[in-house]
Amino acid sequence: MSQQSLTAKRMKDIRAFHVMDLLAKAKAMEEQGRYVIHMEVGEPDFESPQAVSKAGIAAIQAGKTHYTPAKGLFALREKISHFYQQRYGIDVAVNRIMITPGASGALQLVMGAMIDPEDEVLLTDPGYPCNRHFVRLVEGKAVEIKVTAASNFQATAKQVDQYWSDRTKALLLASPANPTGSLLSKQNIQDLYRQVSKNQGIFIVDEIYHGLVYDQKETTALAISENIFVINSFSKYFGMTGWRLGWIVAPEAYVDELEKLAQNVFLAAPTPAQYAALAAFSDESLNELEERRKIFAERRDYLYSALQDLGFELDDKPDGAFYLYAKCTQFANDSFQFCHDVLEKTAVAITPGIDFGDYKANQYVRFAYTVPISEMKIGVGRLQEYLSI
Amino acid sequence: MSQQSLTAKRMKDIRAFHVMDLLAKAKAMEEQGRYVIHMEVGEPDFESPQAVSKAGIAAIQAGKTHYTPAKGLFALREKISHFYQQRYGIDVAVNRIMITPGASGALQLVMGAMIDPEDEVLLTDPGYPCNRHFVRLVEGKAVEIKVTAASNFQATAKQVDQYWSDRTKALLLASPANPTGSLLSKQNIQDLYRQVSKNQGIFIVDEIYHGLVYDQKETTALAISENIFVINSFSKYFGMTGWRLGWIVAPEAYVDELEKLAQNVFLAAPTPAQYAALAAFSDESLNELEERRKIFAERRDYLYSALQDLGFELDDKPDGAFYLYAKCTQFANDSFQFCHDVLEKTAVAITPGIDFGDYKANQYVRFAYTVPISEMKIGVGRLQEYLSI
Repeated sequence: MSQQSLTAKRMKDIRAFHVMDLLAKAKAMEEQGRYVIHMEVGEPDFESPQAVSKAGIAAIQAGKTHYTPAKGLFALREKISHFYQQRYGIDVAVNRIMITPGASGALQLVMGAMIDPEDEVLLTDPGYPCNRHFVRLVEGKAVEIKVTAASNFQATAKQVDQYWSDRTKALLLASPANPTGSLLSKQNIQDLYRQVSKNQGIFIVDEIYHGLVYDQKETTALAISENIFVINSFSKYFGMTGWRLGWIVAPEAYVDELEKLAQNVFLAAPTPAQYAALAAFSDESLNELEERRKIFAERRDYLYSALQDLGFELDDKPDGAFYLYAKCTQFANDSFQFCHDVLEKTAVAITPGIDFGDYKANQYVRFAYTVPISEMKIGVGRLQEYLSI
Repeated sequence: MSQQSLTAKRMKDIRAFHVMDLLAKAKAMEEQGRYVIHMEVGEPDFESPQAVSKAGIAAIQAGKTHYTPAKGLFALREKISHFYQQRYGIDVAVNRIMITPGASGALQLVMGAMIDPEDEVLLTDPGYPCNRHFVRLVEGKAVEIKVTAASNFQATAKQVDQYWSDRTKALLLASPANPTGSLLSKQNIQDLYRQVSKNQGIFIVDEIYHGLVYDQKETTALAISENIFVINSFSKYFGMTGWRLGWIVAPEAYVDELEKLAQNVFLAAPTPAQYAALAAFSDESLNELEERRKIFAERRDYLYSALQDLGFELDDKPDGAFYLYAKCTQFANDSFQFCHDVLEKTAVAITPGIDFGDYKANQYVRFAYTVPISEMKIGVGRLQEYLSI
């Protein structure tokens, strides 16, 4: 057993994030005194809302650190249901809402409960890298739909039809998407849902960047149909990354199966996090988050212009999340090497396209605007100097 | 999609805990004003150690709620390494230690990284019910070794040899075990490891009840070989169930694979929990836990005698965990029905054997001594009245 010969075959298909190597390099540079500008991080720089932290502390003080039910605290599920009413004007039954350890836990439940070996799940390339690994973990097969700026980096119903095979079971899309920040319109969701339903598959929509949308009001897929699986998270908009808390809204028919799986694979989401999240929907918290949303919008606008000025090729300004996916072919043929060069020469960390798929990945890098504009300005200044050499 | 027809096939093999029905019934009774004695719960009734709660609060106050590295806080992994030195007198390299979201997260990583479809994993029946589901989730096949009091409810090397097939990849045992509380001796572990190595498989030992051992000093499998996977948790001994925190110590050759999978399937364990756990190894905390261990020992001794007096058939007094696995054939032929009857008639909740496997499951029930003796006395009194009718 001295070699890795006993490792499961699936591990060959499960990739580490390339950005981890960059992060290790960045850390080594920081230890040598370099001041690194981090624009690779998919995590808000803000702390959790004050009301959330206070509620978490109060829960621990009150000894609320035992297991909760597998579906999560009823009161939290009620608050989420209420939030859908308040923000989107739709009714979502509390019974359909399950609290999970991050959106990761939610994705795992859906894949575990719904995907058989060899079942195909349609995803986008580029897209969130872990998604195909959740599929692979249960022996399903991720099939990537190549998306471009022409369709706002989202899959179209026509593509779904083209890519759908006898073994296709599901379509998983994100809105806003990572790494592109692109949104699905209400019409898009309707068209996609109709196509998936026609093919008797399931439609899963990742809405973890909901709330971080800047020029329009986003549509939740739950407004289109009660038969869509919707995944969400307290990490991004609610600023609760490290608490590890998300949720899933499932079609009624699948709720019990998901609960059964949750009981077995993670017992329940973290308890202090659940109590903390009860305060996430308070006026105090939502006001704080609204201020942050405005700051993210300003950062996006700044960075979008700045990257254009530097010569990066950008598509239409993305509506959501906190990323810009920029074409860097003017500067390099290999965005992976480019990221390493940029880090070494300028101490600016960005993420190579290869972390989000294979399709044209060499041509793109992802910038995260999860740092203040003052920081980004330093980074942009360094890039300007480097790129104009 | 109105029916569950699209559910993955594996879900047919993944069982809900039967005790959940009992819990629902118990809850309904409580809502009607009945005073239920809960002896079904696999969770310590104590709060988290004060030092732990304080450290968790301090972390939240300091804004330490962002993601940690996938392997967990380096400082926490160092403390665990130090703990192995201090308590067991063995060296465990920090690099081999990974922090996980509960032991559940650890089990999932090992199965995901090591078990291919159709690979067989040997477990015990009775045993912790989720284990076979972790195997099933990744399309492996749990094969249950029937164990009895004759071998202290643990698998023997001889049995492992008998059950081992061409498709067997791993042996997973727990010490102390759930539901029996039985321990593997150093000699047992050596013999089992030798057998598994001979068969070129991997040996996984679940040590989540370590620390809750009453009549002897338990042996960690890490003292036998660096090639054993050991799973542990902050839930039971450290009293941190709802925080969802565990760890795994892996053979060096597999650490990177496990890390890669962790990055993808859960990103990292909850951050406040990790900071809280830094204080779990303080003298203040360990002293508190030692007091609790003594209380658990007293409870065990009380309950063991009381159940014997009631007429339950008990094997040798178990050395660890907080369970007694009692034969109830004197009272009923179907322990599942017996649990329901006992709950309805006496408002005492206990867990049926069926939740731990199939082998002789109808003959056994599990009592958890996770309530004070004063509570147990009430329960025992009610049982006495009920059983003597």
